[in-house]
Amino acid sequence: MQATVLTIGDELLIGQVRDTNAAWLGEQLTLAGVVVRRMATVGDDEKALQSEIRQSLDESDLVVTTGGLGPTDDDKTREAVAGLFGVELAFRGEILEDIRERFKLRGRSMPESNRSQAMVPAGFEVLSNRVGTAPGLWREIQEGEAAGGMLAVLPGVPYEMKHLFAEEVLPRVRRRGGLRAIVHRTLRTAGIGESSLQEAAGDLSGMLSDTLRLAWLPGPGGVRLRMTSFGGDREEADGRIAQLEACLRDRIGAYVYGANDETLEEVVGHMLRDRSLTVAVAESCTGGYVAHALTNIPGSSAYMAGGVVAYSNRAKVDVLGVSPDALRKHGAVSEVVAVQMAEGVRRRLGADLGLSTTGVAGPAGGTSEKPVGTVWIGYADADGVAAHRLQLVRDRMLNKQLTTTFLLDRVRKNMLAGRP
Amino acid sequence: MQATVLTIGDELLIGQVRDTNAAWLGEQLTLAGVVVRRMATVGDDEKALQSEIRQSLDESDLVVTTGGLGPTDDDKTREAVAGLFGVELAFRGEILEDIRERFKLRGRSMPESNRSQAMVPAGFEVLSNRVGTAPGLWREIQEGEAAGGMLAVLPGVPYEMKHLFAEEVLPRVRRRGGLRAIVHRTLRTAGIGESSLQEAAGDLSGMLSDTLRLAWLPGPGGVRLRMTSFGGDREEADGRIAQLEACLRDRIGAYVYGANDETLEEVVGHMLRDRSLTVAVAESCTGGYVAHALTNIPGSSAYMAGGVVAYSNRAKVDVLGVSPDALRKHGAVSEVVAVQMAEGVRRRLGADLGLSTTGVAGPAGGTSEKPVGTVWIGYADADGVAAHRLQLVRDRMLNKQLTTTFLLDRVRKNMLAGRP
Repeated sequence: MQATVLTIGDELLIGQVRDTNAAWLGEQLTLAGVVVRRMATVGDDEKALQSEIRQSLDESDLVVTTGGLGPTDDDKTREAVAGLFGVELAFRGEILEDIRERFKLRGRSMPESNRSQAMVPAGFEVLSNRVGTAPGLWREIQEGEAAGGMLAVLPGVPYEMKHLFAEEVLPRVRRRGGLRAIVHRTLRTAGIGESSLQEAAGDLSGMLSDTLRLAWLPGPGGVRLRMTSFGGDREEADGRIAQLEACLRDRIGAYVYGANDETLEEVVGHMLRDRSLTVAVAESCTGGYVAHALTNIPGSSAYMAGGVVAYSNRAKVDVLGVSPDALRKHGAVSEVVAVQMAEGVRRRLGADLGLSTTGVAGPAGGTSEKPVGTVWIGYADADGVAAHRLQLVRDRMLNKQLTTTFLLDRVRKNMLAGRP
Repeated sequence: MQATVLTIGDELLIGQVRDTNAAWLGEQLTLAGVVVRRMATVGDDEKALQSEIRQSLDESDLVVTTGGLGPTDDDKTREAVAGLFGVELAFRGEILEDIRERFKLRGRSMPESNRSQAMVPAGFEVLSNRVGTAPGLWREIQEGEAAGGMLAVLPGVPYEMKHLFAEEVLPRVRRRGGLRAIVHRTLRTAGIGESSLQEAAGDLSGMLSDTLRLAWLPGPGGVRLRMTSFGGDREEADGRIAQLEACLRDRIGAYVYGANDETLEEVVGHMLRDRSLTVAVAESCTGGYVAHALTNIPGSSAYMAGGVVAYSNRAKVDVLGVSPDALRKHGAVSEVVAVQMAEGVRRRLGADLGLSTTGVAGPAGGTSEKPVGTVWIGYADADGVAAHRLQLVRDRMLNKQLTTTFLLDRVRKNMLAGRP
């Protein structure tokens, strides 16, 4: 089965908004066994849209569009689709009620312009949007009519699009059948860079083939290793993956913290919960990002005691009990201060583990002794306290993310080693 | 002048690499006065590439491709272009010398596979690549041959592509002439949804035309309004934008916090700095996200006193001084607790402003009285303290973002009103 992905919006063509929908859809379709043949981006222009959708339907079995379903005049996708199939836009009362209900839940009344979102091209199925106002549209095109295939029309807001694609579009595509067997599995690593990891993994070429591939995907949360097995029956494909995974875990298992969609904060969170441990975080250079990552996990209140963003020396001294002497003598970015922050936040919040970060996030503020990217991370528990120095990069946001990854990976490794 | 942007590579179609070249080219072409008509992404496939380039040359005056110029077998762009124009690939010794020289500079010898990068389709001009190995290609197509227009073939490595586009392609396009003046300006709003904002803005159709457009771009950080003025000279285009901006500010100016690339945390940060105010944040449901947003701005240590992530009741009571009685009587998600958290963090960290968030972030944990998405935000300064209730959505991450936007916007509005 082949697919074309169309993203719609003037803001994409002028580069004001960077499209993330196309890449996400490309990945999801590929994972489902659909071959993505082409992607295209057009503006909010009825004619351009129609010509692009027609061409896509001619060449592909499945066309997914995103964008142009908002309530305002510059959203043209509904009109374009109706025009292309030569049908009218019909008002659907039940959609309007849904939209009105969503506004009511948020204590607001629905503006009149949202009525346009209840207009649906005749012959299209409505994909109900539970996380936003614009419903999606779906049509399986009959032989002889326009072209064969399936057309999914989704909103451009990424989380609405993702929800509708996963909940409504993918099940319909699967029902249609004809997907080739593909099995994917991803191992997630932290605490090591891509080339060092490859070196540690050694020569894998003997294991890989046309039916078993391995992709190295680096990112701020660590390097992911995606294994893909093509063709044969499910059991065969699973067997090939299992063999490769065993080999990888044998060689680089120490760096692997999880598989597939598991995040490091999720894995660490579950380990803390299973051990009935609580954690508290004292952050300087990460400015709240570690706490943010930990609290992104639903149910994290079971193990997250809390945190202190100690951006000022006053907060370090008053709230965390860091000694003014240590700050004066070693500076805020130092082993001593990282240690005292970790101990202080653990004591202050009565947690089992105390974590800390202090560093030069950048882009300015570095010295020859402590250049931008110099970071200390601290860890304290009942068994003791330690701090480690990292030398990271020049980008402020990336330094927050990388520090968080290293810190959480240390917590994971300590728990695996039986601490505290 | 109209342009089509083609990005080339299997890794883009399967979503393994997120394309950033298309958005960058879209922005640069638009700023230069070229109308980007369409973008497309195809894999490393000769036939698909030829069909896409042919169609693009038919519809546009300028076609820019990126990718597929590497030295390996899966790079097909050179062959595809030669085939499309019915010309041979010719070996150019001077290019090979350039490539060999680049390797030598990095202390390495050139692998044999790089020879393929010295093969150039006959009739194409070579755009010398001073920052990488793959040269770009350029051709101005004669009337009657294939189609009119200009074709620029660039490498996919962003740094190399940008260099070649700016140094070699743009000057050639400008020399050709016929660029129309385009001016863009974006107003950024917070604290109000897209449709309510449109209602507040009223009927604007009388002001808009083919030469002056307005796009409404919603996101978790608020709705952006992009004004675009086409044609005439620069002064004329600027004048039209200024007139529309004045009208928008007159009607919905209270919601506008900045323009173009300014973020809310940046605007609020600069206002705090200019007033020599410091801020402290007590976060429950946002779990560190407000502090993270504020500390993303370089130099934020000047006004960010710090924060407390008070995820547990113990942290609320011990660190922030929230009364156990209030927690028992009203629950953690309540006006009283939001007020006490804001007052507590302000006092604890000795800041001018104290902010707080407490709510049901979801996806679970809601009750009929306090459903998921119920959030209280608190604000305390020398003039007093207040809390406001928000009714947000079911998505945990989005609730963090939306709460942060509302809270920072309140700080902004209070400062504008002369508080504290």
